[in-house]
Amino acid sequence: MSGAGIGTFYGVGIGPGDPELLTRKAVRVLTEVGWIFYPFETRTGASFSRRIIAPLGLPESKFRRVSLGMSPDRGPDQYTYATAVDAMVRELRQGKSVAWITQGDPLFYSTFIHLYEEMRWRFPDVPIAIVPGVTSPSAAAAAAGVPVSLLAEKVAVVPAVYGLDTLPALLEDFATVFLMKVNAVFEQLLEILASLPSTVQAVYVERVGTPEARVVTDVQTLRGQKLSYFSLVICHQDKPGSALAAPGEEA
Amino acid sequence: MSGAGIGTFYGVGIGPGDPELLTRKAVRVLTEVGWIFYPFETRTGASFSRRIIAPLGLPESKFRRVSLGMSPDRGPDQYTYATAVDAMVRELRQGKSVAWITQGDPLFYSTFIHLYEEMRWRFPDVPIAIVPGVTSPSAAAAAAGVPVSLLAEKVAVVPAVYGLDTLPALLEDFATVFLMKVNAVFEQLLEILASLPSTVQAVYVERVGTPEARVVTDVQTLRGQKLSYFSLVICHQDKPGSALAAPGEEA
Repeated sequence: MSGAGIGTFYGVGIGPGDPELLTRKAVRVLTEVGWIFYPFETRTGASFSRRIIAPLGLPESKFRRVSLGMSPDRGPDQYTYATAVDAMVRELRQGKSVAWITQGDPLFYSTFIHLYEEMRWRFPDVPIAIVPGVTSPSAAAAAAGVPVSLLAEKVAVVPAVYGLDTLPALLEDFATVFLMKVNAVFEQLLEILASLPSTVQAVYVERVGTPEARVVTDVQTLRGQKLSYFSLVICHQDKPGSALAAPGEEA
Repeated sequence: MSGAGIGTFYGVGIGPGDPELLTRKAVRVLTEVGWIFYPFETRTGASFSRRIIAPLGLPESKFRRVSLGMSPDRGPDQYTYATAVDAMVRELRQGKSVAWITQGDPLFYSTFIHLYEEMRWRFPDVPIAIVPGVTSPSAAAAAAGVPVSLLAEKVAVVPAVYGLDTLPALLEDFATVFLMKVNAVFEQLLEILASLPSTVQAVYVERVGTPEARVVTDVQTLRGQKLSYFSLVICHQDKPGSALAAPGEEA
């Protein structure tokens, strides 16, 4: 890993929050790399990703913190990404391997994508390896016990802030729609949900995989509450006969 | 785990194929449970799920095989699901815990859903716990290096056999569309892909996470080939300015 040419840049998905949902591969890579870069979100004032991997007991000295603004347009962060990539490339050129840790999966609504693109454009000779992770939709469905999809069924993932108005139309075609980051538009979502057919089941899930996780099946009870940034709503359409046999139909 | 009332029924996602993509939680649960039930697919004549967890070296004596026909309408399998649930409930009532292992994630195009629904309807007193897993779309995107989604972008998962005709319309609204199990309709898919705007990038991925994995970025070269059942195509729309800065715009 050192002294032998250029190191590998790893994008490592560390899952949605529960340290037990780390993959064996993520654990191995994080143990083997020379440096672990991680985002410190200036908006929330914390590093959720550091917290997820804390139980691994990796040495403090291999961590490098990068502050990110997490603004919606990401404008101010472009400089941060460029600076982080520069710092990582200095290590990679010395033959060290470097991991960037990311909540959930590295290619699914993740800051890693910015670093990945920056690295590919500016330093195309750097080897890149991506370790996929369990996503928050998968973990939320597991916590809520919602059967996401079977056979012919389609699944959509929609950032709530940008796609709420399309929800009724989507539910005519998709068995399950995951609405990501619902906190900012929750009152509007409640109005839309109330207008949907009764076959649509909606479940609110926040901070899935952490001790503070919450699963709320009667979403209307959340009206007026301040909700977590790490929140999503699963809308699932039960189509008669499409997936599940009624009890009387069982053999 | 034994002698103390009723056991827990676990649905355990074991990831898309690479044994290293098992989560720490899956490993722990499979080590602790009394029985591991697993599907033997009579169509393919193999148990891919057994192969994925083979490196864990779990004792042969804790495995119980269930043959599944995997027919498209699942009709003949309803009896198999009922029989498997009966067998699991007999163990659960003796205080043993039971796991059903499932490739990928238990609630995402998985046979587990049938067993889960059967168990919930017929034996509502049985405690159920679901361990989410890395999905094949996540692993395929990682293998192909395709940035799935950022910020405002939407993601769709569509079984190719049932939704191919909707692809052009979906790509006007979704940044990434995963087409699952493309092998049966691949020639038709090639026609549709050839008609799409050049901003749509399509990547074929099969048997992701196994030593036989294949990533093909020039999908038209696959014309006429016999393709794997474990195959998907990632269609990704690069929207200018939506996610990625052009190199010249970097700080």
